Amino acid sequence: MEETWANGLDLHLDVSGTRPRAQLEGALRDAVRDGRLRAGTRLPSSRTLAADLGIARNTVAEVYAQLVAEGWLTAHTGSGTSVAEAQGTLPHGPRPATPAHDPRRPRYDLRAGEPDLSAFPRGPWLAAARKALAAAPDAALGYGDRRGLAVLRTVLAGYLARARGVAADPAHVVLCSGFAHGLAVLSRALRATGVSELVMEEYGHHSHRVIASSNGLAVRSLRVDDDGAVPDTSAEAVMLTPAHQFPLGMTLHPVRRREFAQHGGVVIEDDYDGEFRYDRQPAGAMQALAPDNVIYCGTASKSLAPGVRLAWLVVPPRLLDPVLAALDGGPSALDQLTLAEFIASGAYDRQIRRARLAYRSRRDRLVAAVSPLGLRVGGIAAGHHGVITTSESPVLERAAAHGIALEGLSQFAHDATATQAGLVIGYARPPEHAYTTALARLCALLADGRRD
Amino acid sequence: MEETWANGLDLHLDVSGTRPRAQLEGALRDAVRDGRLRAGTRLPSSRTLAADLGIARNTVAEVYAQLVAEGWLTAHTGSGTSVAEAQGTLPHGPRPATPAHDPRRPRYDLRAGEPDLSAFPRGPWLAAARKALAAAPDAALGYGDRRGLAVLRTVLAGYLARARGVAADPAHVVLCSGFAHGLAVLSRALRATGVSELVMEEYGHHSHRVIASSNGLAVRSLRVDDDGAVPDTSAEAVMLTPAHQFPLGMTLHPVRRREFAQHGGVVIEDDYDGEFRYDRQPAGAMQALAPDNVIYCGTASKSLAPGVRLAWLVVPPRLLDPVLAALDGGPSALDQLTLAEFIASGAYDRQIRRARLAYRSRRDRLVAAVSPLGLRVGGIAAGHHGVITTSESPVLERAAAHGIALEGLSQFAHDATATQAGLVIGYARPPEHAYTTALARLCALLADGRRD
Repeated sequence: MEETWANGLDLHLDVSGTRPRAQLEGALRDAVRDGRLRAGTRLPSSRTLAADLGIARNTVAEVYAQLVAEGWLTAHTGSGTSVAEAQGTLPHGPRPATPAHDPRRPRYDLRAGEPDLSAFPRGPWLAAARKALAAAPDAALGYGDRRGLAVLRTVLAGYLARARGVAADPAHVVLCSGFAHGLAVLSRALRATGVSELVMEEYGHHSHRVIASSNGLAVRSLRVDDDGAVPDTSAEAVMLTPAHQFPLGMTLHPVRRREFAQHGGVVIEDDYDGEFRYDRQPAGAMQALAPDNVIYCGTASKSLAPGVRLAWLVVPPRLLDPVLAALDGGPSALDQLTLAEFIASGAYDRQIRRARLAYRSRRDRLVAAVSPLGLRVGGIAAGHHGVITTSESPVLERAAAHGIALEGLSQFAHDATATQAGLVIGYARPPEHAYTTALARLCALLADGRRD
Repeated sequence: MEETWANGLDLHLDVSGTRPRAQLEGALRDAVRDGRLRAGTRLPSSRTLAADLGIARNTVAEVYAQLVAEGWLTAHTGSGTSVAEAQGTLPHGPRPATPAHDPRRPRYDLRAGEPDLSAFPRGPWLAAARKALAAAPDAALGYGDRRGLAVLRTVLAGYLARARGVAADPAHVVLCSGFAHGLAVLSRALRATGVSELVMEEYGHHSHRVIASSNGLAVRSLRVDDDGAVPDTSAEAVMLTPAHQFPLGMTLHPVRRREFAQHGGVVIEDDYDGEFRYDRQPAGAMQALAPDNVIYCGTASKSLAPGVRLAWLVVPPRLLDPVLAALDGGPSALDQLTLAEFIASGAYDRQIRRARLAYRSRRDRLVAAVSPLGLRVGGIAAGHHGVITTSESPVLERAAAHGIALEGLSQFAHDATATQAGLVIGYARPPEHAYTTALARLCALLADGRRD
């Protein structure tokens, strides 16, 4: 387990001089920097550390606050202060070809695909877990229904109808361990029903193509223009991001939605960030247009955190058996019970409302920050990212040199026709305290670019 | 979420007569029986209900205790009393061909494969979750390492070395969502490395064969005799249950272990109940004999509960990349953090020690109960089940008619040579309060059988 630092004296902090606050600040910074205090280590309460060191509690509290503001420490309501994760963890994309061996996390991460992990509602989630586990029957902890627990499928069906306009019968909801897992299951299921090819938007995650093809489907690209994906009536199966094309960001045009929904092939609707609509009415799920044709896919990866590994499919009845036959694994009953309670209690809605406000404000700040440079951010009516049209490689090279993680459109392009250049800015990922600096650095980079 | 019954008056319980205790008992029984009180519904505290009804708190407490003893209600330390799951949940085996639509749970369930779910340590698990989540860095909630969180892989490697003699490097531990998920992943990984056939013991779970074959492997049977599986040096890949053959229950002979470990093919070691050894020293994992050949598979499904959906593979280095390429899904970071804390704090060992004592006592009671009938229980040096050699079908037919769920050896036999008849008695599954009656009913059935 992450160690808890029980005793402030263990680190030989010397605050015996005349400026204990500055001494303590410097000593803690040093300890984090040189690894004596490792990421995730929990610090003693300000009261305990003050007693250990013989200084005022307020002094310690002020030092903690300062170091949190600087990003060295992280504070969680109700669970104290710990060393921030900036330096030494093991994150990487959802499906790398080989295991990662401790890549360093960049100092400012503006890649799309992950929400602000520091905003995960740890306290409310634990409260929901406690309540759910107290009420759950023993049988909920058994092997159970392969679709997932009835209580969560029922609550989700209600939520999806209300929030996304999905026509969802709890009997046709299937829970899985994140969207990548769901896509693997769906690929195998489609293969088993005789589908040989999945048509995917020419811009998208490379990892999704790997999943489809390693699970038996050929992949062909679908053109994307300003109205979203261009309908292809010859497709047996299509995967779309209708509410917010990833990464370009447009909404699929209503006429095209209908064409896709009714053209006869199976549609996998990847509604990865459908809850995060800012400027207009939410674009409801296209699944409602053709529940017999469209497999709706939602996820908690953006609304809560990818680590929760919870996603949901709403499956047309005729595909339910093949999907269940292709399903292996699935989320834990404990998390299922907790999410059901979390949604039913209104905590999920509150979390999304809070996150939506925060991300909308970040988006507005991004737009305002790059506007003086004559740059526009596209695809920002929803979600966690936007696209700045500019030449990619000079900016990306400088970004890497400056410890900023950035990605260009070309990294998501899969077809000869996909030739747009631009930066995909994930504005959700940095913790709140780091966003201002991340934005300033991005603007500096872009300004340098304008001078080239 | 499961509803909480906030107000005792909602059910119109009438306890205004002269025998409030008997009235309340009867009224609650009726309410559960006719569904007004649904499985999982949490009852008010005895204090609250007593106040609602204007009777003594002790009276309510006694009624609750009585109904818990009868199996109508379930009591959880620290989380009150709720309606038991006996009547209306959705459990079924791990991989049915089609989704189950609310089969009724039998009154006495003596099938193998599931531990006593009422023994899941809800309180300690929640405490571990709280501690783990307080200490975890934000990055732990991201997409993360595909093998699983480093903190859990490290703790597990230590645990497996200590408890099962596994040679485990955390870098080669891969977490998955239960053994069935692990077997699906391994089947795809073996297929990708050119293996075409998995040799499996002639007795075993039918579902495991379905997983292997639906993930691209042909399945061939391996003979099992009194010394366990008979080595087959022509196999490309073998799956074994060396510590406790499922379902026959013998330990694989040491000479055969060596033969399997060294014969060259890949061995999938299914160590499903290795922690539960009663009579001799634990039979360590065979993986230690040939870590380059053996994939060790352990699970929390028997030691905690299947609903936790957590299992672990220890993978030979040369197979790590194919396994990660075949991996989709996996357990949630929240559960991983919690299990790491649970193991590191000693709570996991305590839970296993407690369960081992309880199951050993159940086993002894089973042996003692059937002994006067001239019946012997085999395969009981370990685990959660034993085998009674007797003719199957008359007993199984009577069992079904009497609400006892039982399985015969023939349901686990997959080969012409697998002709043993017998009953597989899962003595772990009933909650403690129901075991005495379950055993009595089983003996009555068996006694009837002896008279046939």
